[in-house]
Amino acid sequence: MNVTIVGATGAVGIELIKLLKLREFPITSLTLLASERSAGKSIDTSLGKVIIKAFDIKHFEGQDIVFFATSGEHALKYASKAVEAGAVVIDNSSAFRLDPNVPLVVPEVNPQAIKSHKGIIANPNCSTIQMVVALYPLYQFSKIKRIIVSTYQAVSGAGQEALQELNQQLNDYVQGNELTVSTFTKQIALNVIPHIDVFQDNGYTKEEMKMVNETWKIFDDPNIRISANCVRVPVIRAHSEAINIETESKISESKARELLAKVDSIKVVDERVNAGYPTPIDASEQMETYVGRIREDISCDKGLSLWVVADQLWKGAALNAIQIAELLKN
Amino acid sequence: MNVTIVGATGAVGIELIKLLKLREFPITSLTLLASERSAGKSIDTSLGKVIIKAFDIKHFEGQDIVFFATSGEHALKYASKAVEAGAVVIDNSSAFRLDPNVPLVVPEVNPQAIKSHKGIIANPNCSTIQMVVALYPLYQFSKIKRIIVSTYQAVSGAGQEALQELNQQLNDYVQGNELTVSTFTKQIALNVIPHIDVFQDNGYTKEEMKMVNETWKIFDDPNIRISANCVRVPVIRAHSEAINIETESKISESKARELLAKVDSIKVVDERVNAGYPTPIDASEQMETYVGRIREDISCDKGLSLWVVADQLWKGAALNAIQIAELLKN
Repeated sequence: MNVTIVGATGAVGIELIKLLKLREFPITSLTLLASERSAGKSIDTSLGKVIIKAFDIKHFEGQDIVFFATSGEHALKYASKAVEAGAVVIDNSSAFRLDPNVPLVVPEVNPQAIKSHKGIIANPNCSTIQMVVALYPLYQFSKIKRIIVSTYQAVSGAGQEALQELNQQLNDYVQGNELTVSTFTKQIALNVIPHIDVFQDNGYTKEEMKMVNETWKIFDDPNIRISANCVRVPVIRAHSEAINIETESKISESKARELLAKVDSIKVVDERVNAGYPTPIDASEQMETYVGRIREDISCDKGLSLWVVADQLWKGAALNAIQIAELLKN
Repeated sequence: MNVTIVGATGAVGIELIKLLKLREFPITSLTLLASERSAGKSIDTSLGKVIIKAFDIKHFEGQDIVFFATSGEHALKYASKAVEAGAVVIDNSSAFRLDPNVPLVVPEVNPQAIKSHKGIIANPNCSTIQMVVALYPLYQFSKIKRIIVSTYQAVSGAGQEALQELNQQLNDYVQGNELTVSTFTKQIALNVIPHIDVFQDNGYTKEEMKMVNETWKIFDDPNIRISANCVRVPVIRAHSEAINIETESKISESKARELLAKVDSIKVVDERVNAGYPTPIDASEQMETYVGRIREDISCDKGLSLWVVADQLWKGAALNAIQIAELLKN
């Protein structure tokens, strides 16, 4: 397959290149597009060194799959050009996710949705993906009536500049210098920030509402009542989520563990001892969605509480996009 | 008043000394007790330099108030000795909190409870205190049926060694060294750990069950259904909590803001703009409980979601203990 990555030098673009290799995705040619600034640099790929080209829609000619790992505005402007050139676009931005003509796909949950695509397939938001992967085996056993989720989101989800800012602040802290803030709204080193993406009229942030709207679309069930609290934490990589759900039928703790353990892409780490649960460090650069702290919710007769951790650059972005491409290939 | 602090060199003991001065607590004599190791050192206090003495129950003679800022085991063994010597004990450990003969007091919520004391008054757990301070004004307007809380707890809550471990790991990270783990069960720098205190049979941790049991006792209302997810985050000071509540009567967002803003010890920081919410850095070494992100819970007809931050060494421990002493004095 002829594959193009738009935004090849960004946080997600880099992981797409790594994962195409790791998953031995069958590539005939790999075109890497980025801004003028990065053009001319070379990157190691599964096809050896590839020179980055400046973004231009002429490069879409003859492509089978074009991954967009750029901003929503950029994707809105150019994704259709790739489709017109004959490619299928897998877009990582939020631009098309709620478009009724665009499937929003998590391969473990709604692989059938890709069949209806008209050239563009949307990759969901990172925090949504790991939540629906963990909840879907439970949802298949009993419908879920309500979800309350609080997130602990890694800094790399805010991009490479954000990560540089965290590292700079940690350096300054260790050296006893004053810390400076620029990308984030508050200091992120040794702090947590309850604000990701812009505020909406209902007081939720856009990140929080993505978890609501995207989950409804992926499960094709807008009856689930969902409330999210999205919080940035000083972690480099992998998002964590404390989730409380209420189900239509009772799911016992042992049943929940059994349902989750059966799924290949889920790794249950759930011993009630020191270190018997997943943390972001454990899930970094891992393909699985980790689930631990599984217990019956004592505040609710048919409730469960669980802790879900996954690498938001992999399962939450690049890996999920490549899994969609793998579905297309089959 | 003749005041003694047991555990004067610990994380909470140090803050007790600072706050006695800051709040101009009327002291005739201040006795500082600690382990043999610290005996002989001097500490600045509101009465000038005070020499630390090795712990011995003989020092309880003639004391009016003895603050215990030691382990539960130590408090269980020695608090009664201070009472026998004629003092009132304000204990920061979990030893007596659920004892039906011991009042568990948050002065903003249940000041009347101290009247029934028989010599010992218990100071609640840090994560409970800030939650009940924030929820009580809402509870007075309408009973609360259910609370779901996920915490973001600072490392200083785990003691001084834990804080040293975080600092050591940050140093090692910045210098490119391998990180070593000893106090915590996993790396805490650049990570989050969903485990505070020991696991209980129901899968919750003891810290999580403290938030349930202590809230019931402080509100004198065991009908509230409560589920907590307690998570340690790499923050030095001040705990944060994402809280979703369900109330008996509807509380609108504006009503909630009005009810909270009326309380002196609560600081509402709730603008839906960049930095328009409290973070641990803002609440560190502040006496108020900060509340932000107030919104109607879209997953529940009579629900609210809010974000509560407070200095767990101050309001969550030393300050609350001193406020109890201030009640005794009146």
